[in-house]
Amino acid sequence: MSLDALFQPRAIAIIGASSKERSVGNDIVENLVKQGFAGQIYPINPKIDSLHGLRAYHSVAELPGQIDLAILAIPANLVGQEIEKAALKGAKAALVISAGFKEVGQNELEQELIATCQKLKITLAGPNCLGVINPSWKMNASFAGIMPPVGDIAFLSQSGALCTAVLDYAQNLGIGFSKFLSTGNKALLKELELIKYLHNDPKTKVICIYAESLENAPEIIKTLRDLNRGDNPKPIIVLKSGKTNAGAKAVASHTGSLSSDDSAYQALFDQAGIIRASSVSELFDLAQVFSLNQIQEVKKVAIVTNAGGPGVLTTDAVIENGLELAKLTDSTTQKLKSFLPSSASVHNPIDVLGDAMGEVYEQAIRILMQAEEVEALIVLLTPQSMTEPAKVAEAVVKIRAISQKPIVVSLMGRELVAEGVQILRQNKIANLTFPEPTAKALAKFAKFHDWIKTNNEADLNYKEVNKDRVAEIFANLEREGRKSLIEIEALEVMRAYGFPLLKSFIANSALEIINGVKEFDKPVAIKVVSKDILHKSDVGGVALNIDQKNIISETKMMLKRVKKNQPQAKIDGILMMEMADKGTELILGINKNSLGTMIMFGLGGIYVEVLKDVAFAFAPLQKIDATNLIQKLRAYKILTGVRGLPAVNQEAIVDALGRLSQLVSDFPQIKELDINPLLANEDGVKILDARIILD
Amino acid sequence: MSLDALFQPRAIAIIGASSKERSVGNDIVENLVKQGFAGQIYPINPKIDSLHGLRAYHSVAELPGQIDLAILAIPANLVGQEIEKAALKGAKAALVISAGFKEVGQNELEQELIATCQKLKITLAGPNCLGVINPSWKMNASFAGIMPPVGDIAFLSQSGALCTAVLDYAQNLGIGFSKFLSTGNKALLKELELIKYLHNDPKTKVICIYAESLENAPEIIKTLRDLNRGDNPKPIIVLKSGKTNAGAKAVASHTGSLSSDDSAYQALFDQAGIIRASSVSELFDLAQVFSLNQIQEVKKVAIVTNAGGPGVLTTDAVIENGLELAKLTDSTTQKLKSFLPSSASVHNPIDVLGDAMGEVYEQAIRILMQAEEVEALIVLLTPQSMTEPAKVAEAVVKIRAISQKPIVVSLMGRELVAEGVQILRQNKIANLTFPEPTAKALAKFAKFHDWIKTNNEADLNYKEVNKDRVAEIFANLEREGRKSLIEIEALEVMRAYGFPLLKSFIANSALEIINGVKEFDKPVAIKVVSKDILHKSDVGGVALNIDQKNIISETKMMLKRVKKNQPQAKIDGILMMEMADKGTELILGINKNSLGTMIMFGLGGIYVEVLKDVAFAFAPLQKIDATNLIQKLRAYKILTGVRGLPAVNQEAIVDALGRLSQLVSDFPQIKELDINPLLANEDGVKILDARIILD
Repeated sequence: MSLDALFQPRAIAIIGASSKERSVGNDIVENLVKQGFAGQIYPINPKIDSLHGLRAYHSVAELPGQIDLAILAIPANLVGQEIEKAALKGAKAALVISAGFKEVGQNELEQELIATCQKLKITLAGPNCLGVINPSWKMNASFAGIMPPVGDIAFLSQSGALCTAVLDYAQNLGIGFSKFLSTGNKALLKELELIKYLHNDPKTKVICIYAESLENAPEIIKTLRDLNRGDNPKPIIVLKSGKTNAGAKAVASHTGSLSSDDSAYQALFDQAGIIRASSVSELFDLAQVFSLNQIQEVKKVAIVTNAGGPGVLTTDAVIENGLELAKLTDSTTQKLKSFLPSSASVHNPIDVLGDAMGEVYEQAIRILMQAEEVEALIVLLTPQSMTEPAKVAEAVVKIRAISQKPIVVSLMGRELVAEGVQILRQNKIANLTFPEPTAKALAKFAKFHDWIKTNNEADLNYKEVNKDRVAEIFANLEREGRKSLIEIEALEVMRAYGFPLLKSFIANSALEIINGVKEFDKPVAIKVVSKDILHKSDVGGVALNIDQKNIISETKMMLKRVKKNQPQAKIDGILMMEMADKGTELILGINKNSLGTMIMFGLGGIYVEVLKDVAFAFAPLQKIDATNLIQKLRAYKILTGVRGLPAVNQEAIVDALGRLSQLVSDFPQIKELDINPLLANEDGVKILDARIILD
Repeated sequence: MSLDALFQPRAIAIIGASSKERSVGNDIVENLVKQGFAGQIYPINPKIDSLHGLRAYHSVAELPGQIDLAILAIPANLVGQEIEKAALKGAKAALVISAGFKEVGQNELEQELIATCQKLKITLAGPNCLGVINPSWKMNASFAGIMPPVGDIAFLSQSGALCTAVLDYAQNLGIGFSKFLSTGNKALLKELELIKYLHNDPKTKVICIYAESLENAPEIIKTLRDLNRGDNPKPIIVLKSGKTNAGAKAVASHTGSLSSDDSAYQALFDQAGIIRASSVSELFDLAQVFSLNQIQEVKKVAIVTNAGGPGVLTTDAVIENGLELAKLTDSTTQKLKSFLPSSASVHNPIDVLGDAMGEVYEQAIRILMQAEEVEALIVLLTPQSMTEPAKVAEAVVKIRAISQKPIVVSLMGRELVAEGVQILRQNKIANLTFPEPTAKALAKFAKFHDWIKTNNEADLNYKEVNKDRVAEIFANLEREGRKSLIEIEALEVMRAYGFPLLKSFIANSALEIINGVKEFDKPVAIKVVSKDILHKSDVGGVALNIDQKNIISETKMMLKRVKKNQPQAKIDGILMMEMADKGTELILGINKNSLGTMIMFGLGGIYVEVLKDVAFAFAPLQKIDATNLIQKLRAYKILTGVRGLPAVNQEAIVDALGRLSQLVSDFPQIKELDINPLLANEDGVKILDARIILD
């Protein structure tokens, strides 16, 4: 509702309109007038009476009519009071161009601004932004001079300055926009609200975002999973900067916002089905490929080219990006052979040879687009003597009319192919300047469909967990003023949430030990139990692989060691525990960061330590998240059985990941949690040790 | 000499000149005439008398004068005889445009062509190529219509069709060339000879190559190490296609040449200091950055920008590509503060803010280029209201005149920055269209200098090796008609080349066993020795960790097992071997492929098997190659000591790699060789087992 006031206002007041050339307050009014905004434009400035042919008003109070949108380009400290006045004139949205808020350390001023807008129920865009553009509304309410053509791409940018370059690049590439917003400091209006609005906007087919930081990953994941579950999934493409520590520091210094580690963002994008652009250039490639093709399953790609070299380069890119070359059937190759010269290659990549004219391309494209074994087509062309780039472009346009399989073209070169490029643009066919990016973009296009296909699950949820028991343990700790659970407490929490544990037993006397040990049919581990001892091994409080007949003597020796090392420790008992079977050591844990709580999964031992081979996903997990966590490991193959090790039971790992997800979702006070190791073998998994620390 | 005949001919005969429009034989003559070639142009065609204002001749024999270069655009089967005729007229080079040779399976015809040219001592370019262009010679002897401007980049392309696109892209980017050659099938004239020529060409500063296959890696490595050892290192940038299996297959199908695995090419590039472009687009970026900056040490980069977002994106790219952000000194930041607004960021990346005019950029750039802590500069600009792209470009030009530190600019956008881009081009400043590639290109620029710095070694060479002993063992095998060495033979080869081995001893009687075992001061391994048994473990022919007192009984049991499993095997003795100390298992081996013999190095066990964590380098190795082999492992950290394992003696590994390199260089008949495992610990390395198979 109030976003309509921002994107499709009927009347706009520009508070801080200025007669000074090249000033923000002048440019915005000029851009609104010049681009033909059809609604009311009210420049506000106490010192001027007219501007760009419009009557100017000395204050908002003087306005003769109601406004939907107030644009503010005045000193930061005056913004709040002017919004109050605008509200009285009916403004539903405020677009604050002015800088001087959080980005320069004025957090308090920004908080006041937020409070004002919340109180007035006004949508606040910015502050510290470039403005908003809606080409189909003929509205350029920004200080960027370019009015882009109408298109179906929405673009949101946390960097105002990037916007001007994006508009200029896009103009050159013939890319049009449905909505274009510089989000600035995102004090109130953030990407999530905008995505919800744009997802519902029939004029928008693809949402592109430049972001330096995002918030609340679990909510973004949930929202996008919900929104994109329907018939009309809308791709969201994000260029995220601040991937490295140095980059994150640079973000912090110019926006005042802290970015999480990039692995958190990557997890967010993977789970939310967000397509990640790795560079400005790729953002444009993806925007084209997504907006000009229908989302569908793509794995097998055909390449048609008039030049071997680019065909091979693109073949490499197809494979490296996880797609496949379609294996053409005999029927298809026969059809190609029927008109291609004998030295042409009728195997994928299809090389129609350097002298192929438009007609030859057209026949080849038609056959490939009609071949069942081909799921998408890449058309390459280098401008040789006989080449007809414009005719080839027309051929693609003609075939597109009869097949909706994705098609990405690269007419290589510049001047020599300019006419062909123009034809493709006019007819809404994706054309990328260079050949290899066609495959990379197509691979991300395909991946989005793969994500949609698996986007049909609920969060993993186990009914039989004993939440009360865990609450009781945590309450107990709070009472005692402790933050760290001792091992038996941590294991008790695990047991309450249904994790498989080794059989164990706490004994408080020699008799209990002797009776208890009878329950085990093999050697046991014994561990000292004491709230005073956090690291049992360090004080000699652990003995492994003890035969039943030696149990008493070994226990005595252990207690003697502990007594010597930590004489004042109060001993609460002896933990007897079944020895673990053979298996692969895994690590489960959590990582809390500014985006939310992530579940961490990895192989234990040297893999975690040296190779950092761990994967992350935000809680709550769905089954697909848990499966992906397992399969993302570089050393995943170890879990499938190598070198005599049997394959482990992956279902049991999924189960453990799901229970962990539920536990940390139910108890946000858990600050740190490690299950290390979780022992996995063909039978299932067992927790050998766990560590929990509360907030 | 004869390459001058190709690149700078005084007189050219075009055999197969044609009056048919848009034919190759017509285009070449037209391009020569149109671009103003100053020498003699002789069109040859039995049926025409003139072409494009020139007199045409009916045959080469009729020519009134001598020629340097014969260009052939006639059916493949006639090429040889025409070259014979051209030779009689003094031709020193033949450029064969005609297709129809190896690339369509006509290997024999291509071999005949090679023989003809070798006999006549004629340089053969092609066949199956687009032609040659030398802008400063005003010669476009190709059927590509574009004459590029004179520049200092040489371009060689195995794909003729790619050439036309490259010329068109380059024209648009304002990139000029010193020489431009389509190498075609490379029947005789290959990259190596061309590189030698171009390295010596004062007009060429950078050599760019598109290649689908190369030959003889060791020779390329040796040549480039020699050439680039001098004062005038010349960067060689290669775009290599056929990286993936599917790509290699596509190469094979359109060129008829087999490509090796990409790891072999990567090893070649790393050792030869060849800069690898990962895409067509990056090839242009690298060509610019290398040709427009002086090679020098670069690690610490400063970024100056008028837009936070692109600054962060580029910061990420700097770090991800292995460079660092320069940490500015107080003195530098003070200087920046003195004129920048207070909300500007004077820490790297330096954000001069969106309203920075040309003057502000100029001051900032001057300070940074003069700051000792800055080794290279990236200048970014987005075109905002107040921005002056042309003035910023002029500022960069001005500062370049006083500092030769590398500088790469990205004026982002298109139309709005076009004037600035033009100024940069005219003044030879690298400008890339998008921001992130500036960092990637600069990182490769820096890496080339790093390579030059270490390019001062000789091949590893050990004087005290016993080559005769190995020759004797191999001769012995040949006599016996065997290809596989048994373990003791393989170990003997290793011993002869000075590899550290476990102490061992061969006994032929119980008495020798009893006496021999006294030489060991701890338990031993015993292994059966038999030329009939290749896999001793499989027949029970190995026993480990045997106490001296049990040695006879264990030997008897072993012999019994072997007898049972392989009754007909002739036993040649019992190998007693010291048991190995603890250590990290490594694998050394060789990999022979179409490019040469590579040394393979990796960590043993699961690392090789699951993670394929191995590295390759071509023999002969220099010390830097061996060091790189070790440090390239992803799990390299294990060798430096983790998890209680001590750091291993890396010098000893280098020594083993060097000896292996020498052994395989001395004995090319070695077809397969594995040292598995090589046990490494803090004291050194020991070979535990080795396997050698001869050709």
